[in-house]
Amino acid sequence: MPYLLLLALLILLPSPAKGDEVYRLVESAKIIFAALPEQPVFKVDNQASKSKIALGKMLFFDTRLSKSNTISCNSCHNLALGGADNNSVSIGHGWQKGGRNSPTVLNSALHIAQFWDGRAKDVEEQAQGPILNPAEMGATEDLVLERLSSIPEYVTLFRKAFPGEAPLTYKNVANAIGAFERTLITPSRFDDFLKGDSNALTEQEKDGLALFMEKRCSICHKGMLVGGGTFMRFGIMRNPWELKDRGRIEVTGKDSDMFMFKVPSLRNVALTYPYFHNGSVWNLDQAVKIMGWVQLGKRITTAEAQSIVTFLKSLTGKPLKIELPVLPPSTASTPRPNSD
Amino acid sequence: MPYLLLLALLILLPSPAKGDEVYRLVESAKIIFAALPEQPVFKVDNQASKSKIALGKMLFFDTRLSKSNTISCNSCHNLALGGADNNSVSIGHGWQKGGRNSPTVLNSALHIAQFWDGRAKDVEEQAQGPILNPAEMGATEDLVLERLSSIPEYVTLFRKAFPGEAPLTYKNVANAIGAFERTLITPSRFDDFLKGDSNALTEQEKDGLALFMEKRCSICHKGMLVGGGTFMRFGIMRNPWELKDRGRIEVTGKDSDMFMFKVPSLRNVALTYPYFHNGSVWNLDQAVKIMGWVQLGKRITTAEAQSIVTFLKSLTGKPLKIELPVLPPSTASTPRPNSD
Repeated sequence: MPYLLLLALLILLPSPAKGDEVYRLVESAKIIFAALPEQPVFKVDNQASKSKIALGKMLFFDTRLSKSNTISCNSCHNLALGGADNNSVSIGHGWQKGGRNSPTVLNSALHIAQFWDGRAKDVEEQAQGPILNPAEMGATEDLVLERLSSIPEYVTLFRKAFPGEAPLTYKNVANAIGAFERTLITPSRFDDFLKGDSNALTEQEKDGLALFMEKRCSICHKGMLVGGGTFMRFGIMRNPWELKDRGRIEVTGKDSDMFMFKVPSLRNVALTYPYFHNGSVWNLDQAVKIMGWVQLGKRITTAEAQSIVTFLKSLTGKPLKIELPVLPPSTASTPRPNSD
Repeated sequence: MPYLLLLALLILLPSPAKGDEVYRLVESAKIIFAALPEQPVFKVDNQASKSKIALGKMLFFDTRLSKSNTISCNSCHNLALGGADNNSVSIGHGWQKGGRNSPTVLNSALHIAQFWDGRAKDVEEQAQGPILNPAEMGATEDLVLERLSSIPEYVTLFRKAFPGEAPLTYKNVANAIGAFERTLITPSRFDDFLKGDSNALTEQEKDGLALFMEKRCSICHKGMLVGGGTFMRFGIMRNPWELKDRGRIEVTGKDSDMFMFKVPSLRNVALTYPYFHNGSVWNLDQAVKIMGWVQLGKRITTAEAQSIVTFLKSLTGKPLKIELPVLPPSTASTPRPNSD
């Protein structure tokens, strides 16, 4: 890992002048992290248009994608609350509880894969899951398509969003939602810092960043999402608690994937408590200490954890301006909600 | 009722020229209905400021006012869906079902009283109800105040919104929400018509309006809300079905209030299906026919019902532009959600 050597070199050089120190920090950080893209990155076979993104936003907020007409994508990935729901696990159809913590939808399209176990390759594939999950939105493909095709405004909007193909398919429902989700990118002051504005972070945040790298949190939490790019075993050095969730092995069947989970992105981490795949830890300082102990085998002091958290708060992006969509009314032929 | 005499006179005069006919329709309508106010009407002891309205909007969308962190005011009064949830009855804490259909929050501040049985005098009083209802949001006053006072941004916003008093009280939570709700006024083309623009309605809509008055729907559905101003017995002429819900008598204890309900406003009625206090009827044509039969003792034909519905659709207001609020994160001392 040549970047680790370079990093060690940059960090371990003799005490430099103030300006040099910041220069080295920026240069080290640029090796490990990257600024978020300035424009959304769309999928080759799901190119976006204004109409597709607008339709996706409507669908994201439309509770009629759920069997009961009460749960939308936004219920668990609440754009008023950092793109998550701030519950350990989400509540779905019939008040059933989810198996894992709902991750934020913000910047989610830039992850290596979707879900904690990476079982969907991208947001378009991910969006197909919760709608049909009996413990989440509880719908069926047929129900979703019957609902949407009974609403003339939606039929028109699908035609505009997907010209030259059969527009109203379940896959295109997810394609539209995915296209909208790809626009949810939230750059923060950290991006300005990486782009060379050394004053974009406070001294305390820079100290926290240096410590974050020095403690090697950035071995996993790296790249433009400060995580989100690899899978890693939960509990490399020590088991944090009795793990019931076997992680990615359930997807791949490979022994080497036992207890493997996607490394979460730390973008907006201060907003997306509680933490870990089971949402069991509410305090970010504590989460940092647990990570140090179980992943790195290091005791992180309270002061160190606080310093790292000070840096992590600089990853909170500028809030997105989201205008609530105006959803078209159902018609006499729209299948009615069923809350049983 | 002198206006009824005048109305009869205007309607029953010999067949007039086209221009005269429209003139008479406008003049008759102006006697019975009124345009919505152009500015929100605030309460004397809850005068609004920008900061109070902005705070109220945040609280309206904040799921942390519910015990489980999953239900907000907007869950059942969904501003993306005409201010209601388009379910017969709403689903609350623990997937419990509500007793009556959730009415739209749009223009609700202008009603004579709140809830189907009028048990709250205004939106400020109404807003206190569902948060504490164990079958709805399931919180307690203490829980709400502990949650909000643990979030520094909310403490600051309450101080700004309620200067010169103890700001963070349960009553002020509802006062802020009420102030926001008072801004949710949705004028439609019908208001333009009442203000003298006789082309604001189509010929078919004018026919429907004339029929609406001729059939005397407007005896109850009158005023600026086309309803919302009086209480009336459900089933004056005939019982529609076996009524289990005894209505306003549960509030007042008066025999004369047996089966009395607030006459719903027909503003945005095309968006706020299903209909009646029990949300039992999904089709607006059918609702019109049922009303004719049980309230007026008249058989309304399908063609007549369709004509009336054509007029009712002109009561759909111009959609409000609502930017989703950015809610401040909880802190280590914020009471956690409890979904039990």
